[in-house]
Amino acid sequence: MPNSTRHTIHRHHHHFGWDNAIPPILTVAPGDTVSIDCRDSSDGQLTPTSTVADVAALDFGRINPVVGPIRIDGAEPGDAIMVTIGDFTPSGFGWTANIPGFGLLADQFIEPALKIWSYDRVAMTPAAFSSSARVPLKPFAGTIGLALAEPGLHSIVPPRRTGGNLDIRDLSTGAVLYLPVEVAGGLFSIGDTHAAQGDGEICGTAIESPMALTLKLDLVKGANLATPRFTTPGPVTRHLDADGYEATTGIGPDLIAAAREAVSRMIDLLVRDHGLAAVDAYMLCSVCGDLRISEIVDVPNWTVSFYFPRIVFR
Amino acid sequence: MPNSTRHTIHRHHHHFGWDNAIPPILTVAPGDTVSIDCRDSSDGQLTPTSTVADVAALDFGRINPVVGPIRIDGAEPGDAIMVTIGDFTPSGFGWTANIPGFGLLADQFIEPALKIWSYDRVAMTPAAFSSSARVPLKPFAGTIGLALAEPGLHSIVPPRRTGGNLDIRDLSTGAVLYLPVEVAGGLFSIGDTHAAQGDGEICGTAIESPMALTLKLDLVKGANLATPRFTTPGPVTRHLDADGYEATTGIGPDLIAAAREAVSRMIDLLVRDHGLAAVDAYMLCSVCGDLRISEIVDVPNWTVSFYFPRIVFR
Repeated sequence: MPNSTRHTIHRHHHHFGWDNAIPPILTVAPGDTVSIDCRDSSDGQLTPTSTVADVAALDFGRINPVVGPIRIDGAEPGDAIMVTIGDFTPSGFGWTANIPGFGLLADQFIEPALKIWSYDRVAMTPAAFSSSARVPLKPFAGTIGLALAEPGLHSIVPPRRTGGNLDIRDLSTGAVLYLPVEVAGGLFSIGDTHAAQGDGEICGTAIESPMALTLKLDLVKGANLATPRFTTPGPVTRHLDADGYEATTGIGPDLIAAAREAVSRMIDLLVRDHGLAAVDAYMLCSVCGDLRISEIVDVPNWTVSFYFPRIVFR
Repeated sequence: MPNSTRHTIHRHHHHFGWDNAIPPILTVAPGDTVSIDCRDSSDGQLTPTSTVADVAALDFGRINPVVGPIRIDGAEPGDAIMVTIGDFTPSGFGWTANIPGFGLLADQFIEPALKIWSYDRVAMTPAAFSSSARVPLKPFAGTIGLALAEPGLHSIVPPRRTGGNLDIRDLSTGAVLYLPVEVAGGLFSIGDTHAAQGDGEICGTAIESPMALTLKLDLVKGANLATPRFTTPGPVTRHLDADGYEATTGIGPDLIAAAREAVSRMIDLLVRDHGLAAVDAYMLCSVCGDLRISEIVDVPNWTVSFYFPRIVFR
C-alpha cells in the first residue's frame, strides 16, 4: 500500500463521552494505519497499589476516556468505517472491580471490591487470579466507535448504533469491525482496553488494562449499515475451551432474570467447589465466563446458560 | 460397574407433555445405562418426502413426543439425577421448518417453509443445505428432563426448572447434566433429538432428526439444585469455529429486541452475500448460528451478537 501512512497518537489526546463537536486530533486517509496508546477505563485512577477504598472514591466524571476523534477523509453519512484490529502492546497491569450500583447483580453485591492483576505482558500466559485460578488472556478494546449524528454530549457508558462501549470480547487482533458513519469524517475514537473478558462482562468490569494498539482505518462507501458488524479471522474461544465448561442455567420468560439466575448459580458453584468468596467468584465470572442464549423460541420460557471454562482451575 | 444394568426402550413408549401421574415405563437403579430410540419432534409427521404443505398441516397435539418416564430408584425431592450423555445413532434424515407463529422473527416470516436434510449417518460429515452451504453436525437431545411437582399435564414446549425442552446445543456426547428432582423417582423423559442447532434455535427448529442414544442415569442425594446445570468434557464449538465468524449486533435496552435485530442483520447479510432467500437464511441461522450476550452491564444498552460460522460457506 504505497499511499498508506502510519500515525501515532498518545494517550493525552482523549475525551469523555461522544460529541460530534469535538475537533478531530488527526485526519487520516482511508487505508492509513494508526498506533494508539490507550488509558485504562479509570483514566489512571486505579494503579497497581490501589485498594478497595480507591474504588469507592472513583471520580465517575473521568470514567472511560477514549482517544480521538480521528477524522477519516471522505467519510460521509451512509458509509462505513472498516477497522482492522492489529496488534496490542499490553501493559502487564490490570484491575477488576465491583463498583456499587453497576453490574448484573448490583443488588446482591453492594460493597466495592477490587482485584489487581499483574500479568506477563510479553508471554501473555494466563494471569493468576488466585493460587488455584488462572485466566487466559485475549486483549481487545471495549470501546470503539464513531460520533453520533445528534448534537451534544452523549454518555460513553452505553453502546450505540455507531458502536462505542460495545464490550465485544472478540474484537481482538485480526478482527474486522464495520461501523456506520453518521457525520462527515466519521470521527473515530477508541479506548477501554481489556486483557480478558467473558461474554456479558457480568460484574461490569473486565481485566481493565492500559494498552497500546495498532489498527487500520478504511472506508466503505454506501455501506448503509444499521448497527456494527464484524468478522473474526478464526476461532474465538480457543484460549478458553480446551478442558470444556461448567455451565449453569436460568430458565424463564425474561432474559435478564434468566441471565441473573444462571450467573447466580455459577457463583454458588464456584463458592462451593473452590472456596471463593462470592464477590471474587462474581469478578472471576466477569473476566472469563460466557452468557449464551441457548434457546429463545420455546414460549414462554427462554434458556440462558452461563459457561465457565474449566481450564481456569486446571 | 458390576451392578449396573443396560436397558433398551423403543420409540413407541412415548408421551406428550409432563405429568407426574404418567406411570413409569421402566425403573432403573442408579448407575444403569439406558438405550433409547427417539422419534423426531414432529412424531413422524414429517418424512423425507414431505413438502411445505405438510408443515401447514401439522397436528400440534403430536409435537415433541418424549420417551419415558423412567423411574430412578431412590430418587427423592431435593436430589439430582445425573445424566451422562453417551453415543448417538443418527438416522440420516432431518428437517428444519419455519412454522407460522413460532420463532424469534415469527412476525416477519409468516409463511411455512421446509428444508429436508439427508446426512451421512456414519461419517457425520457436514450436511448440505445447498450447493454452497454445508452445516457441521453435533447430535444432542433438545428435550431432557424430569416431571414437575405440580399435578396435571404441563405443555412440553417451554423448558422448566426440572429441565425439559432446554434446547441446549452442548448436551451432546460426553456432557453430564444434573436435573433437580421434584417427585419420587424423578420420572425422566427424553426426546426431540437434533443433528445440529445454534445457540438460540432462532427459527424455532433445529435439524430435527430421529435418533437413538445411550445414557447413564445416576443419583446425587441432597443436591438441592434450583435449575439444571451441566458440564462439557471439552470444547463446544470446534465443529464450527475453524474459519472464524461473521457477526452482527443488536444494541438496546431490551434483549429480545436486540437479539431480533442481530439476527435480522445476519439474514440481510446472508441474502446479500450468498443469494439465499430470506427464509432459507433464517432456517440456516437457526441450525448453526449462535446468539451471544456480549455485554449486559453498560446501562441502559445491552449488546447482543449473532455469530455465523464462516466454515459453512467454505
